[in-house]
Amino acid sequence: MKALLFDVFGTLVDWRSGVAREAEAHLAPLGYKLDWRKFAEAWRMQYEPGMEEVRSGEIPFSKLDFIHRRMLERILPAFAVGKLPESVAASLTHAWHRLDAWPDVRQAFDKLRRNFLLAPVSNGNISLMVDLARRNDLRFDAILGAEIAGDYKPKPRVYLSAAEAFDLKPEYCLMVSAASHTGDILGAKAAGLKVASIARPQEYPGALAEPEVPVDLKANDLIDLAAQLHTG
Amino acid sequence: MKALLFDVFGTLVDWRSGVAREAEAHLAPLGYKLDWRKFAEAWRMQYEPGMEEVRSGEIPFSKLDFIHRRMLERILPAFAVGKLPESVAASLTHAWHRLDAWPDVRQAFDKLRRNFLLAPVSNGNISLMVDLARRNDLRFDAILGAEIAGDYKPKPRVYLSAAEAFDLKPEYCLMVSAASHTGDILGAKAAGLKVASIARPQEYPGALAEPEVPVDLKANDLIDLAAQLHTG
Repeated sequence: MKALLFDVFGTLVDWRSGVAREAEAHLAPLGYKLDWRKFAEAWRMQYEPGMEEVRSGEIPFSKLDFIHRRMLERILPAFAVGKLPESVAASLTHAWHRLDAWPDVRQAFDKLRRNFLLAPVSNGNISLMVDLARRNDLRFDAILGAEIAGDYKPKPRVYLSAAEAFDLKPEYCLMVSAASHTGDILGAKAAGLKVASIARPQEYPGALAEPEVPVDLKANDLIDLAAQLHTG
Repeated sequence: MKALLFDVFGTLVDWRSGVAREAEAHLAPLGYKLDWRKFAEAWRMQYEPGMEEVRSGEIPFSKLDFIHRRMLERILPAFAVGKLPESVAASLTHAWHRLDAWPDVRQAFDKLRRNFLLAPVSNGNISLMVDLARRNDLRFDAILGAEIAGDYKPKPRVYLSAAEAFDLKPEYCLMVSAASHTGDILGAKAAGLKVASIARPQEYPGALAEPEVPVDLKANDLIDLAAQLHTG
């Protein structure tokens, strides 16, 4: 194994409480009182349909920031939120740039970096990954993923373009994804990568701590992953 | 100014003595006694024609590693070097992954990072940049440049794709390039970026310490650049 490729939303960062916090900070001053976590969950639920429009070729490849904005517009009516001022909508869309890593991530990252190349392979755009890396002091070797590939996971091209960027055969890359991210795990396997699952039962209500499909490596968190890879 | 985009070969790293050292390490054991610096210079001299084949569309976009290999094959006869064993040719081509940064670079980098996003915008491929960054402990926010753009500098697309990756208008990006790299400076300016020149008279015999064309900022080295940007 030469490189660890990370899914980001849910695997490295806690989108649910971060987006809930940001939604409250943006919408409460406008007089809204919502279940902020439910709002975050509803926003995230638009993720798969949002991606699918790009993957199917219905709309051209767009940065995830753009997709997040469309997803936001779609859920507002369900929460009885009217049209937002442009500056609020734009800033709220950037909530996804201001998420915190799970507590084990920072601790394990430098250890993992000693023995492996590290890169995010997320559907998030480069600037989004850059902001999350800065905020959480995560040192990646490169920002890989959807924007590099020009398509969205779980299309094989996204995983393969990451391996190619590092000049590695897919089997020398370990895709690290939350246990409940079955599509990501299957996508990476189909592209010939090795896969590791991380239990993230806190990601959202009902998230699986155990993968539904076979994986090469199963860890509780990144500290456990580092130990299992003998870098801990 | 929000981001500093760096040219790499000659601006951040000393390709001439590094490639000379690697050429000697690979070819001296085979019995060759060459002027190793001249060999490095001749290899580098093939750079523009090598790029031009891609820029003109004559050959499809290829990683610089591939171009470096073709450039190597072309200069061997001039130095009376016969066909190299494949493993030697492959390892020698990777000489460009094993170059040292100029002494001021490491010292200035963390200071610059406090105030700006940092990325290489080189014609070098991602894996090449990753290896140079690891070797010299340079912390970039992302690896941008030719491989992301699918074309080579000084085509405007390469500079613009870097600005777009950071969600920045070109004028918020400062392209940092050695003073003698006139093509790079003009290319960045044509794309609407700001440009800074760094005096690198040691890059190769006859390298200019002063830019031939107007620049927004002129520095002796990266420490001077940091001071002028008020981050020193």
